[in-house]
Amino acid sequence: MTTTTGTPSRNGVDTATLFATIDAVKGQPEIAKFQFRAANTWVSGTHSRSTASGFFGALQELSHKSDTVIEFDHPEVLVGADHAPTPVEYLLHAIAACLTAGVANIAAARGVQLTKVTSTVTGDIDLLGILGLSDQVRNGYEQIRVTFSIEGDADEETLRGIVEQSRRRSAVYDVLANPTPVAIDVVTH
Amino acid sequence: MTTTTGTPSRNGVDTATLFATIDAVKGQPEIAKFQFRAANTWVSGTHSRSTASGFFGALQELSHKSDTVIEFDHPEVLVGADHAPTPVEYLLHAIAACLTAGVANIAAARGVQLTKVTSTVTGDIDLLGILGLSDQVRNGYEQIRVTFSIEGDADEETLRGIVEQSRRRSAVYDVLANPTPVAIDVVTH
Repeated sequence: MTTTTGTPSRNGVDTATLFATIDAVKGQPEIAKFQFRAANTWVSGTHSRSTASGFFGALQELSHKSDTVIEFDHPEVLVGADHAPTPVEYLLHAIAACLTAGVANIAAARGVQLTKVTSTVTGDIDLLGILGLSDQVRNGYEQIRVTFSIEGDADEETLRGIVEQSRRRSAVYDVLANPTPVAIDVVTH
Repeated sequence: MTTTTGTPSRNGVDTATLFATIDAVKGQPEIAKFQFRAANTWVSGTHSRSTASGFFGALQELSHKSDTVIEFDHPEVLVGADHAPTPVEYLLHAIAACLTAGVANIAAARGVQLTKVTSTVTGDIDLLGILGLSDQVRNGYEQIRVTFSIEGDADEETLRGIVEQSRRRSAVYDVLANPTPVAIDVVTH
């Protein structure tokens, strides 16, 4: 598969800037070190509110154009107030979005014009784990399944190859599929 | 640590219903099998839009009180349009929210009144991985660090124990810290 430079507008991806960015990182690898951040505040019960704002990358402190407030809760069947989706649901949305962004970038880089990309994700979880009722059942998802529906001006093999390359380079796929070190500190008052 | 039944309003958690739910699951374990779902649609470039709506649990199809639309994009420094946070940022918000919900439930079950719970999360990621510039660097976070600040009518050891128990029973912690099978299917047209 050869990489062809697309027009700036293919799939809404500025491929010239994308390739220039990759070249810039090749010349100065430390600009690739990023730190993303979240700040969460408990509201009541299982309801909490989180804000996405600043991050570090390309050797500097950066901010999103605007802050995003994200709400979390448990549904009533799980003794929450259902003000928002559960934390575990966001993992499913995140993997769909990460793979989709990769698909758009990779398709543009390969000269493929996409017309439609949708995906559905399911996550099977047995709550015997988190309820402490079985030591044989894990707390998290037993299985996550992503199904992509993809349309564009390329044959089926090419479209499948774009999704597969996106999986190979997906940060969210990696964090879900492989172990990631998570440290938890507590400050009390 | 003994478990004491709290008042229904402690931390906004209905502990009587929480314990009744756990007892109901003990008697009929199959009601603990849940399936959460996401549906995502590509918008343009790295921008996509996802909807949280229905899920399966307690032997039936269920829906959140209202649908939640979640937006994703990449920042400009990563050649996106910065319409929303990145997919990997949502993982950081999700672990904060999952641990916080557990803290509120566990504190209520242990008779501890919380007055304030906040947390910050950082995720360090080296983009040499997703940019395909190094085989030595993983695609996902190298390290996630959660820092809780917690206040309530209990001593430091008790408060720390609540956070630790929440970690032990956290679905999001488990999915991030341990491998989760992720299957990806593609339908072309």
